[in-house]
Amino acid sequence: MDKFAEQRISSRELFQGRLLRVRIDTVKVANGLETTREIVEHPGAVAIVAVTAEKEIVLVRQFRTPTGEVLLELPAGVPHQGEQREGSARRELAEETGYHAKNVRKIWEGYASPGYSNELIEFFLATDLELKSPSPDEDEFVEPELIGVAAAVALVRQGEIRDNKTMIGIMIADLFLKGELK
Amino acid sequence: MDKFAEQRISSRELFQGRLLRVRIDTVKVANGLETTREIVEHPGAVAIVAVTAEKEIVLVRQFRTPTGEVLLELPAGVPHQGEQREGSARRELAEETGYHAKNVRKIWEGYASPGYSNELIEFFLATDLELKSPSPDEDEFVEPELIGVAAAVALVRQGEIRDNKTMIGIMIADLFLKGELK
Repeated sequence: MDKFAEQRISSRELFQGRLLRVRIDTVKVANGLETTREIVEHPGAVAIVAVTAEKEIVLVRQFRTPTGEVLLELPAGVPHQGEQREGSARRELAEETGYHAKNVRKIWEGYASPGYSNELIEFFLATDLELKSPSPDEDEFVEPELIGVAAAVALVRQGEIRDNKTMIGIMIADLFLKGELK
Repeated sequence: MDKFAEQRISSRELFQGRLLRVRIDTVKVANGLETTREIVEHPGAVAIVAVTAEKEIVLVRQFRTPTGEVLLELPAGVPHQGEQREGSARRELAEETGYHAKNVRKIWEGYASPGYSNELIEFFLATDLELKSPSPDEDEFVEPELIGVAAAVALVRQGEIRDNKTMIGIMIADLFLKGELK
């Protein structure tokens, strides 16, 4: 697909933080025009669709500094250095909700906002859950909340889920319970 | 919800670009601990779920610099200064695909990645479409592609849609055609 080809002329790092790296690239697009792209590099994330034997999905409520709101979301997080994604999914679920999953498998993956970020979110389905104690990071305050999957689907349809990965996670839980997930 | 309260101690701007502003906040969380948050400010985006009379969804293929991949996505973009969101949705759809929509209505909105970004994506359903000529931005190369909604749903279930807003858009198109969208 040559018409999509883009040639990088130069790249300048603007910021290197604990989580994010921000750079600005100057690129030449297919018609020869030069333009700049503002890019956020992110290590990627895991999001966990945990479904109980009672057909509930395990969500978490937390304050999000960037949005200034308390949001209802899938448990999720960034893998530790060198950590396998599946292990990361198990760890984040346990830390944020106290649920330990016997079965964890990857379902899909998708970019969060590919226009400016390379953050890829990998979605894991977690089943056969056992509840122990949550152990969130010391700067993380999350409150687990169980919602029947059918009720969660209704929340999506009513526009009451305000986080994209969580809309997708509820769709995954619904397909799983209907036996329609490959 | 006091346990979620977070107090901002200070905020430092790291970058102000054409699209993004990046800052680092020092905050005090509920247990008194101070920590930093790396935050990307984004003006927000519109994504358009355009469904033809033939029950097809209008997607676009484009190269994304941050991910280094050609992705199949909903038409989407950032509103111009002062532009109403619905007008922005009409404009982006027309520019990227050539489709002009008689009916446009907002369905849902969701954050793309609320852990570090305030980008809110508003999803619009566009119907009663008329095809004219696309007029993309001069540094934008997009290729429209029509896919039957049922086939698009199958692509999601097979994990072949690698963009979160597009998974959601296909779900919206499917609900619309089933008459299940409020």
